[in-house]
Amino acid sequence: MDPVTKALNELHRRISGLTDGEVASYIPKLAQADPDDFGIAITSMGGRRYQAGKADTEFTIQSVSKPFVYALALTDLGPDEMLRRVGAEPSGEAFNAISLEPVTGRPANPMVNAGAIATTALVAAADPEARSARILDCLSAFAGRRLGYDEEVYASEAASGDRNRALAYLMRSAGSLTDDAYAVTATYFRQCSVLVTAADLAVMAATLANGGRNPVTGERVVERSVAVRTLAVMATCGMYDGAGEWLLNVGLPAKSGVAGGLIAASPGRFGVAVYSPPLDREGNSVRGVAALTAMSERLTLHLMHAPVHLTATVTDTGHGARSSRTRSPEQTALLNRSRQRIIAVGAQGELEFTETEQLLGAVEGAVPATPGWLVLDLMAVTGIRPGSAAMLAAGLADIAQRGHRIVVAAQEPFLAAADGHPDWQAFTSRDDAVAWCEDRLLAGEAPLAPSAPSAPS
Amino acid sequence: MDPVTKALNELHRRISGLTDGEVASYIPKLAQADPDDFGIAITSMGGRRYQAGKADTEFTIQSVSKPFVYALALTDLGPDEMLRRVGAEPSGEAFNAISLEPVTGRPANPMVNAGAIATTALVAAADPEARSARILDCLSAFAGRRLGYDEEVYASEAASGDRNRALAYLMRSAGSLTDDAYAVTATYFRQCSVLVTAADLAVMAATLANGGRNPVTGERVVERSVAVRTLAVMATCGMYDGAGEWLLNVGLPAKSGVAGGLIAASPGRFGVAVYSPPLDREGNSVRGVAALTAMSERLTLHLMHAPVHLTATVTDTGHGARSSRTRSPEQTALLNRSRQRIIAVGAQGELEFTETEQLLGAVEGAVPATPGWLVLDLMAVTGIRPGSAAMLAAGLADIAQRGHRIVVAAQEPFLAAADGHPDWQAFTSRDDAVAWCEDRLLAGEAPLAPSAPSAPS
Amino acid sequence: MDPVTKALNELHRRISGLTDGEVASYIPKLAQADPDDFGIAITSMGGRRYQAGKADTEFTIQSVSKPFVYALALTDLGPDEMLRRVGAEPSGEAFNAISLEPVTGRPANPMVNAGAIATTALVAAADPEARSARILDCLSAFAGRRLGYDEEVYASEAASGDRNRALAYLMRSAGSLTDDAYAVTATYFRQCSVLVTAADLAVMAATLANGGRNPVTGERVVERSVAVRTLAVMATCGMYDGAGEWLLNVGLPAKSGVAGGLIAASPGRFGVAVYSPPLDREGNSVRGVAALTAMSERLTLHLMHAPVHLTATVTDTGHGARSSRTRSPEQTALLNRSRQRIIAVGAQGELEFTETEQLLGAVEGAVPATPGWLVLDLMAVTGIRPGSAAMLAAGLADIAQRGHRIVVAAQEPFLAAADGHPDWQAFTSRDDAVAWCEDRLLAGEAPLAPSAPSAPS
Amino acid sequence: MDPVTKALNELHRRISGLTDGEVASYIPKLAQADPDDFGIAITSMGGRRYQAGKADTEFTIQSVSKPFVYALALTDLGPDEMLRRVGAEPSGEAFNAISLEPVTGRPANPMVNAGAIATTALVAAADPEARSARILDCLSAFAGRRLGYDEEVYASEAASGDRNRALAYLMRSAGSLTDDAYAVTATYFRQCSVLVTAADLAVMAATLANGGRNPVTGERVVERSVAVRTLAVMATCGMYDGAGEWLLNVGLPAKSGVAGGLIAASPGRFGVAVYSPPLDREGNSVRGVAALTAMSERLTLHLMHAPVHLTATVTDTGHGARSSRTRSPEQTALLNRSRQRIIAVGAQGELEFTETEQLLGAVEGAVPATPGWLVLDLMAVTGIRPGSAAMLAAGLADIAQRGHRIVVAAQEPFLAAADGHPDWQAFTSRDDAVAWCEDRLLAGEAPLAPSAPSAPS
Repeated sequence: MDPVTKALNELHRRISGLTDGEVASYIPKLAQADPDDFGIAITSMGGRRYQAGKADTEFTIQSVSKPFVYALALTDLGPDEMLRRVGAEPSGEAFNAISLEPVTGRPANPMVNAGAIATTALVAAADPEARSARILDCLSAFAGRRLGYDEEVYASEAASGDRNRALAYLMRSAGSLTDDAYAVTATYFRQCSVLVTAADLAVMAATLANGGRNPVTGERVVERSVAVRTLAVMATCGMYDGAGEWLLNVGLPAKSGVAGGLIAASPGRFGVAVYSPPLDREGNSVRGVAALTAMSERLTLHLMHAPVHLTATVTDTGHGARSSRTRSPEQTALLNRSRQRIIAVGAQGELEFTETEQLLGAVEGAVPATPGWLVLDLMAVTGIRPGSAAMLAAGLADIAQRGHRIVVAAQEPFLAAADGHPDWQAFTSRDDAVAWCEDRLLAGEAPLAPSAPSAPS
Repeated sequence: MDPVTKALNELHRRISGLTDGEVASYIPKLAQADPDDFGIAITSMGGRRYQAGKADTEFTIQSVSKPFVYALALTDLGPDEMLRRVGAEPSGEAFNAISLEPVTGRPANPMVNAGAIATTALVAAADPEARSARILDCLSAFAGRRLGYDEEVYASEAASGDRNRALAYLMRSAGSLTDDAYAVTATYFRQCSVLVTAADLAVMAATLANGGRNPVTGERVVERSVAVRTLAVMATCGMYDGAGEWLLNVGLPAKSGVAGGLIAASPGRFGVAVYSPPLDREGNSVRGVAALTAMSERLTLHLMHAPVHLTATVTDTGHGARSSRTRSPEQTALLNRSRQRIIAVGAQGELEFTETEQLLGAVEGAVPATPGWLVLDLMAVTGIRPGSAAMLAAGLADIAQRGHRIVVAAQEPFLAAADGHPDWQAFTSRDDAVAWCEDRLLAGEAPLAPSAPSAPS
Repeated sequence: MDPVTKALNELHRRISGLTDGEVASYIPKLAQADPDDFGIAITSMGGRRYQAGKADTEFTIQSVSKPFVYALALTDLGPDEMLRRVGAEPSGEAFNAISLEPVTGRPANPMVNAGAIATTALVAAADPEARSARILDCLSAFAGRRLGYDEEVYASEAASGDRNRALAYLMRSAGSLTDDAYAVTATYFRQCSVLVTAADLAVMAATLANGGRNPVTGERVVERSVAVRTLAVMATCGMYDGAGEWLLNVGLPAKSGVAGGLIAASPGRFGVAVYSPPLDREGNSVRGVAALTAMSERLTLHLMHAPVHLTATVTDTGHGARSSRTRSPEQTALLNRSRQRIIAVGAQGELEFTETEQLLGAVEGAVPATPGWLVLDLMAVTGIRPGSAAMLAAGLADIAQRGHRIVVAAQEPFLAAADGHPDWQAFTSRDDAVAWCEDRLLAGEAPLAPSAPSAPS
Repeated sequence: MDPVTKALNELHRRISGLTDGEVASYIPKLAQADPDDFGIAITSMGGRRYQAGKADTEFTIQSVSKPFVYALALTDLGPDEMLRRVGAEPSGEAFNAISLEPVTGRPANPMVNAGAIATTALVAAADPEARSARILDCLSAFAGRRLGYDEEVYASEAASGDRNRALAYLMRSAGSLTDDAYAVTATYFRQCSVLVTAADLAVMAATLANGGRNPVTGERVVERSVAVRTLAVMATCGMYDGAGEWLLNVGLPAKSGVAGGLIAASPGRFGVAVYSPPLDREGNSVRGVAALTAMSERLTLHLMHAPVHLTATVTDTGHGARSSRTRSPEQTALLNRSRQRIIAVGAQGELEFTETEQLLGAVEGAVPATPGWLVLDLMAVTGIRPGSAAMLAAGLADIAQRGHRIVVAAQEPFLAAADGHPDWQAFTSRDDAVAWCEDRLLAGEAPLAPSAPSAPS
C-alpha cells in the first residue's frame, strides 16, 4: 500500500471515532443518511487518486456544487459582469441569510444560498432544462465521469424549499434576478441533487487546484483565471460564517454541503474530499473538518506557509565555462585566452518572484563591463510563474541592450513559456550552449544580440 | 538600474496619474497630508530592498499596525486564547463597526477597530507605558530600525477618538475588555501614531511573508505559526468590507491604514508597501490598491495561482548506479554482477505534496521484490515542506520495512529538515552514496536497515 | 352649510396648495393616479357624514385594509392566538421589511406587509375564494356599502408582487405561515385592490372609533374589544417607521395606503379619511398627513390631551331632600322631623375614574353613622365607563352593608349598564326616588337593604 | 376604608402571590433589594392619593426618570429642536441598544438609554452640578416634595456604567452629543439614583396625566403641550421592546425602571405607580405589569376604549322658553304672542367633537328662517375641549350672521374658555338668559347681534 493511502487510512481510523454532530434533517430525505458513512479521497495534480473508507458511496452534492456552477457562470459572463451580479464578500451571516445589498439587491457572494441561486440563473441557457443540462455537463466534466441525480432528494428538497423560493422572489423584486423565481429555484434544487462520491469530489477539487484542467482526464474544464477566482471566493466565503476561522486554522479554500460532503483544494498540489453526514452547528461535516484540519497541519498545507528553501537558487556564476567538445590545441589555446568572455550563471528549482530577483541579481553581478556571452543555465529550473518569466525576460533584455549575447540552456517547457525572445540563443543542454559560444569565439565574432546594431570588429 | 527597481519606477509613473480619492479628514492632522506623496517599496525574502517615489517619506502607521500588534498578542496568548478573546471572522462591516458577538462581546476580528483595541489590551504589560514600549519595540523589530511617534497626530487622534472610546467602553461593559477603557484607547492611539515609511512597511510585510524572520536584519521577530495566522487574518479581514473582492482580484493578504499606507505580503516571496494619502470610499489608498492590483496581475502573485511545473520531479529511476570510485578489476566484475541491487531514484525542485507523492510513486515502481540498496538522489531538491518531509520519511520507512536499505544523497539543510531517521544512510553527494552501497556489496553485506532484524548470511 | 363641512372645505382649500410628494410607481397601474385628486371625509359617532373635495372618487384601499382584516382575523382567533401568530411591536423598519422574529418566524406586527399577509392567511376559510369573499364582506360591513375590486390594479400588483411572495415563502419556511404561499399572496393582493372612496374609509374608521359598531348602518361589525385592540396596533404600528413621531404630533391611531388613502380614528368621537395620491418618503399621503396634523391641533384630538373639566361632578350633597308629592299636614310634620335621614347626593357629566372617585368620596362624606336613605341623583350623568360602573357599585354595596338603603335616580341606559344590583331601588326621576323614601319613612320602615338581615322594628 | 383603597388592597393581596422575575443584578447595589417589597399608589386628578402595601418604601427612580427629564429638556428646547436632537420612534430594540440613526447619530427615542443620556445633556445648565440641580428640582416638583439621592446606588452605577459611557462616546463621535461624554454619563447616573416611593411616582405620573399641573400641590410643572408629548413618547417607547404589546393589552402610557418602579398615566384621570423589584425578561416589574394590566381591564382604562354615552347631549330644542320672572298680564300676553321667537337649545355632559357636532346640528334644526333669540342652555355641560369650543363659536357666529341673537347660559369656566365672543350675551343661569330675551321682546327690540348691521324695524 502506498504511503498516501496508508496515511489516509490511518487518518480515517483515527477520525472515525468522532461521533459528534447531527445529520441534516431540514430536508426529510437527507435525514435518512447513515451517520457512520465516512470516506476520504485525494486526487493529486498528477491525476493519481487515493482514498480511504466509503469514498465510493454516493450522496447528493448540495452546496458543494456552488463553486463549480460559479465557475461555469463566470466563464459565461466574465469577471466584471459576474461581480456586478453576485458579490464576493463574506457576509458574516449564515448560509441561508436573506440580506442583499441595499440598493442593487446583489447577493453577498455565490456561496450563500441567495448568491448560489442568482449564479445558477446566470448560467446561459435557452430554458430551465437546457440550464440543468449544462450544469450537469459541467459538474460531470469536473468529476471526470457522467453524473446523475437523486430524484427522491430532489423531490424532498423541492417540497421543503420555501426559504430558497423566498430568496429568489426577494432577488426578483430587487431586480437582481430576472428569470422566473420559481423555475430558477427548481433548477437550483436539481443542481443540489446531483449524486457524487467523495472520490468524485476529490477530482473536482483537484481540477480547481490544477488551474481548471482535470488532472485525471486531462480535459480543460474552465480557464485558469476562472479557477483562481473560484478558489479565492471559496477561501473567503466557502465555510459560511466560519470562513475566517477556517482560513486561520486550515488555510485552504474549501466548501461544504449539507449532505456531509466537504472539499478543499491546495492550489498546484491536490484536491481532497470527505464524506460524513453528521454536521456541526455551522452546517459543516464534523469528520470532514477534523480530517482537513489534521491534514493541513500534518502536511503544512496552509496557504500562508512560506515554503522552506533548502538551497540557493543560483548554482553557478563563473566566468570561463568550458564545453565537452573536442577542440584542437590551437582552438584550446585561443579559447583559454578569451574564455573569460563566456559567463555562465546557473539556477535551480522554482522561479517565483524571489528566485527570479535573486537570479537577476547574480547575473548583474557576473556580467562584465565589456560585452560577452552570457550562458544562462536553467536546466535544473523546475517551475516558473508567468510573471517571473516576464520579469526575467525584461532583465535579460536590459543586459542584451548593453551588448551582451544571451544564450539560454533550459528544458523545452521553459523555452516555450518564455517564447518570443528572438534575442536569446536557446539550447536544451548546457554543454551545447557553451559550445555554441566557444564556436562564436573561435569564429572571431562579437557577442552582439541579433537586434543590436552591429559593432565594429 | 536593476529590473525590479525599473519595474517599480514604471509602475510608479503610470499610477501617479491616478488622482481620485480623498485624504482622510476625520483626524484633523491627517487632513494636512500632501495628496501627491506617493512611494512604493518591496523587500524580498533575500532581504533585498527596492523602491520608487517617496518611499522614505514618514507618515503614521495607523491601522497598518493592527496585524503586527496582533502577532505580538498572539505570541503572548497562544492561538486558542487569542481566538477566545478576538474572533477571526470578516464582519461584512466597516472598520469602525460597533457590533460585537452577542453573548461573549468578542469583537469580530483584530482588523476592525474594536478588535484592534481589544488586541492592544491583550499585549502583556505591567502598565500602559510598558505596553506602549513593547508595541513600539515590536513594530521596530518588524521594520528593522528604531521607530518613533508623531506626537501631533497622536494628540489630534486622541482629541477626535470618541468612537474608539465608545468601542472600548462597550467591550468593557460586555466583559471582553478588562483593562481601563480610556487608557487602552490611548495606548491604541499611540500605536497608530508610530511614524513609518513605505520602505519600513515593506520590510515589516516581508517579515510576515518570510515566516516571521526579518529578511533584512535576520532577526526572528515572531514564530512561523504566528506569522501564518497573522497573514490568514489579513487575507480575510484586512481590507475591511472589501476583503472578499480584494482576495478575488489581488489574492494577497493585505492591510491598509487611514494615513495612506497599504501593505501586502506574498508568503515566501516578498513584502510590498505603498504610501499615498488619497483614499477610496472603503478607506483604502487609491494608488495603493491600483499598484498592488497591477503587480499581482503582472507577477502572477495571486495565492490561488498554482505554479506552472516545467519538468518532472523525478529525474532518474535506474537500476545499477555506478560511482566514480576507482575499483580493482575483481571488484568491478563483482559489482557488475550485483549492480542491479543498487537502485537510484533522483528528484529535483520543490518537494511539496504533489512532488513527494510523485517521488514515492517512482520509488515504489523502482524497488524490486528482493531487498536492495535504494539511493535516493535529492541533490537537486531545492525546497521541501515540513509535511512533505514527514510524508517522504513515512514512505521510505515502509520500503525499509521490506528489507531495503535507504541511502540518501541530499544537501545539508534537507538532511537537517528530515533529521532523526536512523535508518537512512545520508550523504551530501550522490557519488559518495553510490560508492557506499558498492562498498557494502563488495563486503558481501545484506542491504538490511539498522533497525531491521538481522538476516541470515 | 354646517360648520363641520365648512371647516373641512377650508382645510381642503388650504392644503390643496401642498404639491410635494410622489405618486407611488412600484405598481405600474398606481402611477397613473391623478396627483391633484384630494378628498377629505369625516363620520361622527352619531353616523353623520361630512366631506370636502373628491371624497367620492374611488381608489384602491391597499394597506388601509390591514387593520380591518386584522380585526376579522382577531375575531376568528381570539387575542391570545392572534398574538402568538402575529406580533404587535413596532419594528422600526419599513413597510416591506423582511425581518421576522428569530425563533418563531412571527412577523413583527400586522401593519407591515409580512404581518398583513400572515393575518390574511389567518382569516378562517375553506379555500382562497372563500377567504377573499369573507374579507370583502368584512370590508363592506365596515364601509356600510357593497365594495368591489379594481381588477386592473390587482393584475398589476400581482405582476409586480415578488417581494410580497418572498415574504410569504419566508414565513412558510419559518413555519409562521402554513397555507400555500403563492395563493395567500394572491388573496392579499386581492384585498389590497378593493375600491373605496375617502367617504367609505371615514365610515370604516368611525366604526373602529365607535367600538366596532358601524355608526351609519348601526351594524355591529366586530366586538368592542377587537376594535380596541385594532386601534392600539394602529397607534404604534400604523404609520410604519414614522409611527412614534406621528403619535407625538397627531396623537391618533392611523393607517395609510400606497394609493394615497389615509385614515385616523378618534375613539368615541369620529373617523376621518383623506385621499391624495402623492406620498412622502415614508409612503404616507402628503396632504393626508398635513390635513390630519392640522385637524388634530385645531380640534385638540390628541389621545394624550386630558379633557378640560368645567365644573364639579358632584352637584348636591344635602340632607333632607323633599319630593313634590302633596302630603297631609301630619305627614309633612312627620317627614320634617325625620327628613335628615334622607340624604341626596347628585352628580353630572361623564363618570370615568376620577369622577367616580369624587362621587364616592362625596357619598362617604354625606352618609351619617345611623342608617338612612341615600338618594343618588345621577339624572345628569351623561356617560360612564364599564369599569366606573363596577367601581361605583362596589362603593355603594359597602354603604349598603352599613345599613343604608341605596335609592338611585338615573336615566334608563345607566340603570341598564349598572344592572344586577338588587339592593338598589332604582327610579328614572329624582322626585320619584325621594318620594319613595318619604313613603318608607311615613310607613315607619327602617332603611334596610333587601339583602340585609331584618332589623327589629 | 374608601372603595379605591379597598380595591387597591385587594389587588395588592392578589398580586403579592406572584413570585416570578429576578431582581436586577447588573448594578451590584440593586441586587440587594428585597424581592417581597411591593407597593401600589394612585393619585387622582383631584389630588386625592390612595395606596396599598409598601408605597412609602424608597428606591431609586432609575429609568422612570426619563420621561420627566424629557419633559424638562422639551421645555428648554421646544418641540422641533427636541425632535431634531432625540427621535421619537420605538426602536424595536432593548433599552441599552447601541444603534443610532445612520447619518445624524440621533438616538431613536428618549426612553432608551442613548436617548435618555442625550436628553439629560440637553437640559440647559452652566455646568454638570447646575444640571443635576435643575433635574432634581424638576423631579421634586413633579413629586410634590423635596427628593434626594441614594449615594451608594450612584457609586455602584457609576462603577458598572461602561455601556452607558460607550453610548455617550458613540453619540459624541457621531456629533449628536456635544458635551463631555464622561461627565454627562455621570449626570445621568445621578438622575437615576434619585430616591422615590411608589406614592411619589403616582403623583409624578398624575402630574403628566393632569396636563402638567401637579394635582396635589397645584403647581404647574410643565406646559400642557409638553405633558401631552411626553405621554405620547411613553405610549410608543416607554416599555422598551414590549411597547406594542403593552399598548395592545394595557393601553396606557407607561415607564418602568430597573429598580422595580413602574408608572402609568391615564390622561385626565389619574397617575398610578407600582414598586416591586423582581423584573421580567424585558426588564419590567413583574408585579407592576400584572397590577396595571388588571387595573386597565377592570377600570376600562384603555386609551382606545370609546366612552359609553348614556344619554343625548342635546336636552331641549323647544321654541317658546319662559322665565320665572313675574310679568304683568299685558306683558304676559305680549310675550305669549311672540314667544316663538325665543328658541331654547340645551346640552349636557362633555362637549368633545361628537357632542359639539350634535349640538350644532340641533341648533341648525331649531333656528327659524326669521331672526330670533337663541338661548343656548349649557348649564349642564361639564367639560369641553378647546377645539370644541372653537368649533361651537364658529357655528354660532354663522347663526348670528343670519341675524339671530345668541344668548348663552353656562357656568363661569365655560364662559371663560369661550371668552372673546362679543356677539354672545352670556348668563350663568338659564332663567336669567330667557328673562333677558323676554325683556328685549317686551322692549320691541330686534334680535340683532351687536356687530350685525341694524335691520329696519
